[in-house]
Amino acid sequence: MLPELREQVWRANLELAGSGLVTGTFGNVSGLDREARVFVIKPSGVPYAELTPAHMVPVSLDTGEVLEGRLRPSSDTATHRELYLAFDCGGVAHTHSEYATVLAQARLPLRSMGTTHADHFRGDVPVTRELTRAEVEADYERNTGLVIVETFRVGGIDPTEVSAVLVANHGPFTWGADALAAVEASRVLEFLARMECLLRALAPDAPRPADYLIDKHFLRKHGSNAYYGQR
Amino acid sequence: MLPELREQVWRANLELAGSGLVTGTFGNVSGLDREARVFVIKPSGVPYAELTPAHMVPVSLDTGEVLEGRLRPSSDTATHRELYLAFDCGGVAHTHSEYATVLAQARLPLRSMGTTHADHFRGDVPVTRELTRAEVEADYERNTGLVIVETFRVGGIDPTEVSAVLVANHGPFTWGADALAAVEASRVLEFLARMECLLRALAPDAPRPADYLIDKHFLRKHGSNAYYGQR
Amino acid sequence: MLPELREQVWRANLELAGSGLVTGTFGNVSGLDREARVFVIKPSGVPYAELTPAHMVPVSLDTGEVLEGRLRPSSDTATHRELYLAFDCGGVAHTHSEYATVLAQARLPLRSMGTTHADHFRGDVPVTRELTRAEVEADYERNTGLVIVETFRVGGIDPTEVSAVLVANHGPFTWGADALAAVEASRVLEFLARMECLLRALAPDAPRPADYLIDKHFLRKHGSNAYYGQR
Amino acid sequence: MLPELREQVWRANLELAGSGLVTGTFGNVSGLDREARVFVIKPSGVPYAELTPAHMVPVSLDTGEVLEGRLRPSSDTATHRELYLAFDCGGVAHTHSEYATVLAQARLPLRSMGTTHADHFRGDVPVTRELTRAEVEADYERNTGLVIVETFRVGGIDPTEVSAVLVANHGPFTWGADALAAVEASRVLEFLARMECLLRALAPDAPRPADYLIDKHFLRKHGSNAYYGQR
Repeated sequence: MLPELREQVWRANLELAGSGLVTGTFGNVSGLDREARVFVIKPSGVPYAELTPAHMVPVSLDTGEVLEGRLRPSSDTATHRELYLAFDCGGVAHTHSEYATVLAQARLPLRSMGTTHADHFRGDVPVTRELTRAEVEADYERNTGLVIVETFRVGGIDPTEVSAVLVANHGPFTWGADALAAVEASRVLEFLARMECLLRALAPDAPRPADYLIDKHFLRKHGSNAYYGQR
Repeated sequence: MLPELREQVWRANLELAGSGLVTGTFGNVSGLDREARVFVIKPSGVPYAELTPAHMVPVSLDTGEVLEGRLRPSSDTATHRELYLAFDCGGVAHTHSEYATVLAQARLPLRSMGTTHADHFRGDVPVTRELTRAEVEADYERNTGLVIVETFRVGGIDPTEVSAVLVANHGPFTWGADALAAVEASRVLEFLARMECLLRALAPDAPRPADYLIDKHFLRKHGSNAYYGQR
Repeated sequence: MLPELREQVWRANLELAGSGLVTGTFGNVSGLDREARVFVIKPSGVPYAELTPAHMVPVSLDTGEVLEGRLRPSSDTATHRELYLAFDCGGVAHTHSEYATVLAQARLPLRSMGTTHADHFRGDVPVTRELTRAEVEADYERNTGLVIVETFRVGGIDPTEVSAVLVANHGPFTWGADALAAVEASRVLEFLARMECLLRALAPDAPRPADYLIDKHFLRKHGSNAYYGQR
Repeated sequence: MLPELREQVWRANLELAGSGLVTGTFGNVSGLDREARVFVIKPSGVPYAELTPAHMVPVSLDTGEVLEGRLRPSSDTATHRELYLAFDCGGVAHTHSEYATVLAQARLPLRSMGTTHADHFRGDVPVTRELTRAEVEADYERNTGLVIVETFRVGGIDPTEVSAVLVANHGPFTWGADALAAVEASRVLEFLARMECLLRALAPDAPRPADYLIDKHFLRKHGSNAYYGQR
């Protein structure tokens, strides 16, 4: 079932393992075949070094059920599924990377404070509200996905322009066109989170950059008038 | 004597050496055979690169005496022994890892501020009180163990749920089912300590996560209703 | 066209990639043949691992036009060109290195606080003013170069003594005798920026070093009375 | 001349280069043959990768003159010489290591805040006073040595118990029984300086550890009653 997607998701999980963003068996990446309405995801608690493409678990986008094999999918599978249902993306990644997680614990958004941020995300990366007791006690992982979606809807944020979120007291989720793009977003997010933590310590009242500078950098790399790279 | 345990404790000491948590000949790991009432521990002051399983020193759990060989055991041996006598564990590790040691010097507990912490420890990692002059001048290492045990007893903390402690102005001790688990706990502790130092600098008044979130994450991975991993 | 310069600029770009100062395809280095009035620069958005000397793009110093090949030059080419037109230098480098970028986002200069700084730069590394909307919306990259030049002219700073600048909310540019010297300046700048961020957190009111100490160290290594190294 | 000493000093300089404590051609280590009244030191400004034992420059302890060869010794040679003349040591190292240098720029001593410090140094590592204009303008490097010696004399500090100093707005010097011990002291100093910077940010008012704890740890490893290691 979906051998190419398994292969790519496996590779994306290895990239995550090699990125310094995860420790132990933590973190997970999935990738979606939207036509087939199936996504494949890392199995739960298997060491990265032992993973093969065959370990990747295919899950139904519509029902959330495992479609093949005996391995249990990542415990965060239901979160991934809600993101695929609500957002226009083909890959999702989850880490507890150090600086992004600290921002999530501080319940502070990752502010857009310079061109490095604007090259990747158009505007602040938001932090979710806390989940309620009811949301945690039943269907915790699905509710984590729903509260992410709510955060973007309520905040009027376009998930194709800001492809990352900080879940309060938990950690980041990122997404992108495919599994590898989702991992790349995790990597960029952590780099920006490092700078944000430093900046807040150094100059908590530093002024925001002008909107026109932010837009310039985002649009230099994204959209129809982009002029970065070889096209 | 206990060749398998020696081999495992030797391997655990090498893991510690490769973890970045210790410098020079510092740090030590031991492992217990509770049935035999013997634990084996790293010798004192021998470079990690020169260690072999044969260097590991067997010590009587009941008397604290060296049972075989000419090498002196780690100077912290009496601390390890008190932990084995009081706690239900099979391995103990000690480091001066940077961030955990800074918290110990600041005499601040490592607070449970998010799910990364809750995945490993159920509640704050405590810091001991200072030792008195009498406790330092005679039987210093044994008293270090006793003050750790006192910290858990007085605080009503279950050492199987919180497998780490910060000794005031000294550094961390961790424990687990065996020597390798104790090293893994040291590694996780240091990662959490990094985040705690960052968080205190960034947002000293950040609110605590809800208890139900902490319990959810701890119980997702530990105990009879755990659903993380392949079982 | 200019095979030796291409080779050196290619090497300098690889040094930059290996320095930890850039992530992904970010960052760029160029080198100038002032006699030929041509500089060569990294192409836009090509992964460092794929670069060869043949990929380096030759650009006219006088017109800014690409002189050979089909690759588009770095999107920051017009900034490099303004620096070559105004400053006496043969190489320019641009990164978003973490600490220098944080200072640029805080709009704080990199102060000369010790002999390590004075060994490389004679005085503070300035931060530019913000660009205006008009400067960003048309000819953004060229205006970035012009605002750097303005910063040095208005501040009375000699660009051969201070070979680096922080562009507000963007990041650093550095320069030197050739492309490799420009990369070396980026590396030194980042090291100094790390120390500056630390120092501001540790002791925001630390007194400035005496001018005579700064001059001593700069002149020990630079100029006609230098006595550092083998001459 | 002194081939074994040259070999050891060369090796100590390579250790320094591999330690992450120096960048470029910075930093230097020397070693003394007190009987021969000669010390050998790294040449000035030669890349570490090109050094061989033959490059090490022998210098007279009594006159400060180069005794053999054409290479110029480290520009800091006169500082090393003053330390050999005043202190009972056989090796001296100098770096601009990041955290120790930041403390020197903040003009803050490295406080003895825990057992990790006490295992190596008995008491705070002091920071010198600023040099005067006259001291900088003539015989700068010699005066740097003299102000270090003055700091220990005025502070009543025993240089065999505290084998390191922070020179104001400059950086650390360390010493030991030989060149390798001096490098090891630089390494330990930097680790302790990292913890000190963190601790000051985290808990500026953290109480000092009890004197009896500090003495216990220093004397556990040093002096006639030491019981650490295999003896």
